[in-house]
Amino acid sequence: MRIELKKHVLHANNELAAELRDTYKSHGVYCINMISSPGSGKTSLLEKTIPLLGGYNMAVVEGDVLTERDAERVRKTGVPAVQIETSGACHLDAPMIQNAIAELQMPDNGFLFIENVGNLVCPTSYDLGEAAKVVVISVTEGDDKPGKYPAIFMNAKVCVLNKTDLLPYTPFDVESFYADVKAVNKDIEIIEVSCQTGEGLDKWADWLKNRRNEFLAD
Amino acid sequence: MRIELKKHVLHANNELAAELRDTYKSHGVYCINMISSPGSGKTSLLEKTIPLLGGYNMAVVEGDVLTERDAERVRKTGVPAVQIETSGACHLDAPMIQNAIAELQMPDNGFLFIENVGNLVCPTSYDLGEAAKVVVISVTEGDDKPGKYPAIFMNAKVCVLNKTDLLPYTPFDVESFYADVKAVNKDIEIIEVSCQTGEGLDKWADWLKNRRNEFLAD
Repeated sequence: MRIELKKHVLHANNELAAELRDTYKSHGVYCINMISSPGSGKTSLLEKTIPLLGGYNMAVVEGDVLTERDAERVRKTGVPAVQIETSGACHLDAPMIQNAIAELQMPDNGFLFIENVGNLVCPTSYDLGEAAKVVVISVTEGDDKPGKYPAIFMNAKVCVLNKTDLLPYTPFDVESFYADVKAVNKDIEIIEVSCQTGEGLDKWADWLKNRRNEFLAD
Repeated sequence: MRIELKKHVLHANNELAAELRDTYKSHGVYCINMISSPGSGKTSLLEKTIPLLGGYNMAVVEGDVLTERDAERVRKTGVPAVQIETSGACHLDAPMIQNAIAELQMPDNGFLFIENVGNLVCPTSYDLGEAAKVVVISVTEGDDKPGKYPAIFMNAKVCVLNKTDLLPYTPFDVESFYADVKAVNKDIEIIEVSCQTGEGLDKWADWLKNRRNEFLAD
């Protein structure tokens, strides 16, 4: 019964996600669904990415169990942000996104960033109509995450490896991490960044611009 | 319907958890349920704690979505460990623990450590019969976690603040973290540790021994 109900819930979610996908496409909006553990630095990554995408329309949907803090941080960059407080739920779903974007002006021909609830497991199952899932991992979490949480690595188009400025102080094995990620998903790209030093952020911004161009040409 | 089903599932879980609690008590076993984000250092904490509790019987139940890696790491300390692979599920529940401890000898008059799936949201709702929930937070995750994920801070008896050796390299505000934790739960204890340098681990081991003594005297 639990499995049947879950199937039913996911099916309804996916139907709405397909509608959202059409909406984004009709506005030329490249939508990113960012998934990570709590504290991997998704909001910091957004704060640093937005100035590198000057000239593009942008909007942000923030997901958290509680608090408006992340949306407030993003708004300081000048980009509109809507906060979803899930009040206990461990992931965002398509109906939440539908409600949130009703409060936003569509960032025509630009980017919609969705920052999911900090959780490396549950958000992976819920399609939000995004063009790409992004998994963010910080080096302080350890290099063993791809083997332990393979679903998100299988489903993401890109892995942002964050907090590389802390590599000298942590027992993170970069080579072993790459091998483990590629064993799960050989097509995924890995981009190393540090939101503290700014290293690698240009590469990440280029990835976004290039994928958006491909998406619009598609 | 979803809410009703969740209530039913939790009720069944809690009935079994009450039985497990009686089992632990009858063996004089102090059971700890460790909850954190992925990569906060729960397994490292166990590896460092076990040698400090020499003389006590111990056993470990490891929870992960996939892989036997954490149980293998714990077994190297000489303590028996059973790995639960949840195959996608985002938390441990009481039936999983019942199956796992059937494979273990009860650590009479000692400690049973349960390391939950790395997830700061879902595991909080599932009673495993433990005497205490422990929330582990690493300083690299940021000081804003108590406000964003209050449920686990409300339900835990102690918060282990890990990776304090990285404080000089991270924008973590210790004072603000303490204030936010205490705003959610004024009775929770906070113990600062570094599994890299060993700092604070004696205080954590003393906490475990003292709580165990109180539990047995109760």
